[in-house]
Amino acid sequence: MSSSISSFALALAVVLAGTGSLSAQSAPLTAQDSDPRVMGWMQGFPPPPDRLITQPDSNYFSFPKLRWSVCHLREFLPTERISRGLGAPKPLDYVAPHVFADMRAEIDALTFTPMDDEEEMTWEESLYANYTDGMLILHEGKVVYERYFGCLEEDGQHAAMSMTKSVTGLLAEILVVEGALDDTALVRDIIPEIGDSAFATATVRQVMDMTTGVKYSEDYADPNADIWLYSAAASPLPKPEDYDGPDGYWEYLQQVEPEGAHGEAFHYKTINSDMLGWIISRTTGTAVTEMASERLWRPMGAEQDAYQTVDGKGVPFAGGGISAGLRDLGRLGLLMLNGGEIFGQRLFPAEVVEKIRAGGDPAKFAGFPTIPGGSYTSQWWVFHNAHGAFAARGVHGQTIYVDPAAEMVLVRFASFPQAKNGYIDPTSLPAYQAVAEYLMDR
Amino acid sequence: MSSSISSFALALAVVLAGTGSLSAQSAPLTAQDSDPRVMGWMQGFPPPPDRLITQPDSNYFSFPKLRWSVCHLREFLPTERISRGLGAPKPLDYVAPHVFADMRAEIDALTFTPMDDEEEMTWEESLYANYTDGMLILHEGKVVYERYFGCLEEDGQHAAMSMTKSVTGLLAEILVVEGALDDTALVRDIIPEIGDSAFATATVRQVMDMTTGVKYSEDYADPNADIWLYSAAASPLPKPEDYDGPDGYWEYLQQVEPEGAHGEAFHYKTINSDMLGWIISRTTGTAVTEMASERLWRPMGAEQDAYQTVDGKGVPFAGGGISAGLRDLGRLGLLMLNGGEIFGQRLFPAEVVEKIRAGGDPAKFAGFPTIPGGSYTSQWWVFHNAHGAFAARGVHGQTIYVDPAAEMVLVRFASFPQAKNGYIDPTSLPAYQAVAEYLMDR
Repeated sequence: MSSSISSFALALAVVLAGTGSLSAQSAPLTAQDSDPRVMGWMQGFPPPPDRLITQPDSNYFSFPKLRWSVCHLREFLPTERISRGLGAPKPLDYVAPHVFADMRAEIDALTFTPMDDEEEMTWEESLYANYTDGMLILHEGKVVYERYFGCLEEDGQHAAMSMTKSVTGLLAEILVVEGALDDTALVRDIIPEIGDSAFATATVRQVMDMTTGVKYSEDYADPNADIWLYSAAASPLPKPEDYDGPDGYWEYLQQVEPEGAHGEAFHYKTINSDMLGWIISRTTGTAVTEMASERLWRPMGAEQDAYQTVDGKGVPFAGGGISAGLRDLGRLGLLMLNGGEIFGQRLFPAEVVEKIRAGGDPAKFAGFPTIPGGSYTSQWWVFHNAHGAFAARGVHGQTIYVDPAAEMVLVRFASFPQAKNGYIDPTSLPAYQAVAEYLMDR
Repeated sequence: MSSSISSFALALAVVLAGTGSLSAQSAPLTAQDSDPRVMGWMQGFPPPPDRLITQPDSNYFSFPKLRWSVCHLREFLPTERISRGLGAPKPLDYVAPHVFADMRAEIDALTFTPMDDEEEMTWEESLYANYTDGMLILHEGKVVYERYFGCLEEDGQHAAMSMTKSVTGLLAEILVVEGALDDTALVRDIIPEIGDSAFATATVRQVMDMTTGVKYSEDYADPNADIWLYSAAASPLPKPEDYDGPDGYWEYLQQVEPEGAHGEAFHYKTINSDMLGWIISRTTGTAVTEMASERLWRPMGAEQDAYQTVDGKGVPFAGGGISAGLRDLGRLGLLMLNGGEIFGQRLFPAEVVEKIRAGGDPAKFAGFPTIPGGSYTSQWWVFHNAHGAFAARGVHGQTIYVDPAAEMVLVRFASFPQAKNGYIDPTSLPAYQAVAEYLMDR
């Protein structure tokens, strides 16, 4: 593999799996100090050489550069549009301005205790602790809190990372509930050319819930880890002349080895999401971008197009490729809170959300200590807590957090230095709970 | 140069300069037979191997594949958005539906004689003769004709090719008229690091009018032609390890050699447009994408974001990188017809359009036999005909044609097999004149 490709594969790998490494093992820069405007990334025409962030630069998705890059993925990679259509957007409702101002002050001052008995923290402190780029909170259908930081502005777009999986999963669940897709079918019955891949004998539901028994390692220390081959396959760049691996997401999926039995346990492996994307496209005859546009972005009155990165054959990255506007993911959250309705219109059957909210089997769920007793179904995380909360989640702190008991939708874009939400949850999930309780008490 | 990069450079070169070659020297497929839906490009999940169009495939911008690719450039290349903002688009006015239907029938039946005394042709025949993808005609501010073909739909985006230059030139002219940019200044006084480049001693006006004396050849048969180096510099892909040429548009511009004297003659060379883009960014402190959004796309009520391809350092391709919606270029045409006003709002001084309409010096203009007595100024083509027509033009048949006498704006997207408009004008310019006369006689 030539060095230029492998550097791209590295960059893509961090986008794929969000393993952006810290540039130093010492404490990272604070949110304020790493603000891309403070850092001066890409400022000037041209920027100074040490402030340039380029695609050939394999560090573009490592902290602190990632604080700029999360808002600019399309400038590095080929993408496909998720169209909002051509009409007027349907504006979100807001509480009255004086109420909004009061609530912002009150929410900012809310205190909570992070997990692991750390010191009490205010909500506003948590925004910086989590390197928040955008925070939107809706209560009873109205925006009550909205702030932007770092690279993000209200008309900007931010990497959704693995929240993309939840869009893919929602589209699949819509197809299942509407009867277009049989979730008990085997993958090989829908996609015969999956061949001898370990996916062949998994059911659609196992793919949706990531309970397949498929080999896929993301050990970055291992040069033979599957993530490298996946990244090389997914790269939209010309393959090196000596490359003889799979070309594109779908060719990769055709050669996945088994690991364990299907249906026994939840294993968070991105390749399931891309398998599901292929199943959706084969079922509907449309790309996932097109279905997301037709079923979600257009009818929900999105105010911005979203976009999705693609592989070298134009296949959208169903496991992590979406970038979108903060308020548009708020619309998506409202749809999930309100059982498929938004602005008085039903976009899909209530049963879709009911099934997702009900969750998967917590007995099969392990490995996520910040989500004890949780589950994962249809590519959504379900907390099984008293409020019935469930969420879309992506590395570096992305979330759409839906709290039905509090009638709250919370959307956060972030660029936390480390990828794993396990590092970010301790100052996030208790904070969300505090806001939910505040809203319920008003 | 490694073969993978050179194949990309070839692909980029054809995008840059629109030299998409015919795959055979025999008569190309007709518009109907080469319709991408008929050809089946990129249909299926996945498409059959022989119906795939990929970025590593250096033929993606050659006929007949280009008939698909002109609507999908962002799926091959990194891009930067030209934002329309978040509000409701301002819809174009239409004549009443029954009038629209009548006029469509009448316009389709109009006949004209192509240049070179060819046989008479109907307007509708000319649409197919020119491999039209989209045609929009506005008269007295209202849409009177609108049709889509091939890869384009009303909510799609199409490569504007060198019409991008006219957006760049319009932005520059706005800055000149508003006093922010002195068009008598030398490039080196605005951009000192242009160094010893031949551009250093050119005036801004000479850059705007492409009367610089700069060496830049686009002879594709010559492996040492400048276009290859420009394409290699512009490629957003990692450079080959042995590459020691310029990296990005702007580094290329710093090493351009002189050829002839500045100010003596019009030479159509894309590097002037990128020089102008740099001048704009240095003057305004914004990327051309940002200025196009702030001064044009947002205030003109665009219904779609546009986008612009970028080099490996994120610099938008000011000479050819824009893709946009058909009706949004109609809005741009209305602005040019109405001296900077649209929907009752003034976006820039009337003098901007007056200067462009007045044209450059026809005595310096040669080499374009289909535009006898024409000129080029501020990156717009001026016909100096009885109607005072002027136009943005891009290879493969792109145009925004403004006919002030007829109060007509005509926008065409196309994917003609050959790049040069000299092949397309004979069945286009007389057709536009016929429509203009029809509209004036109504």
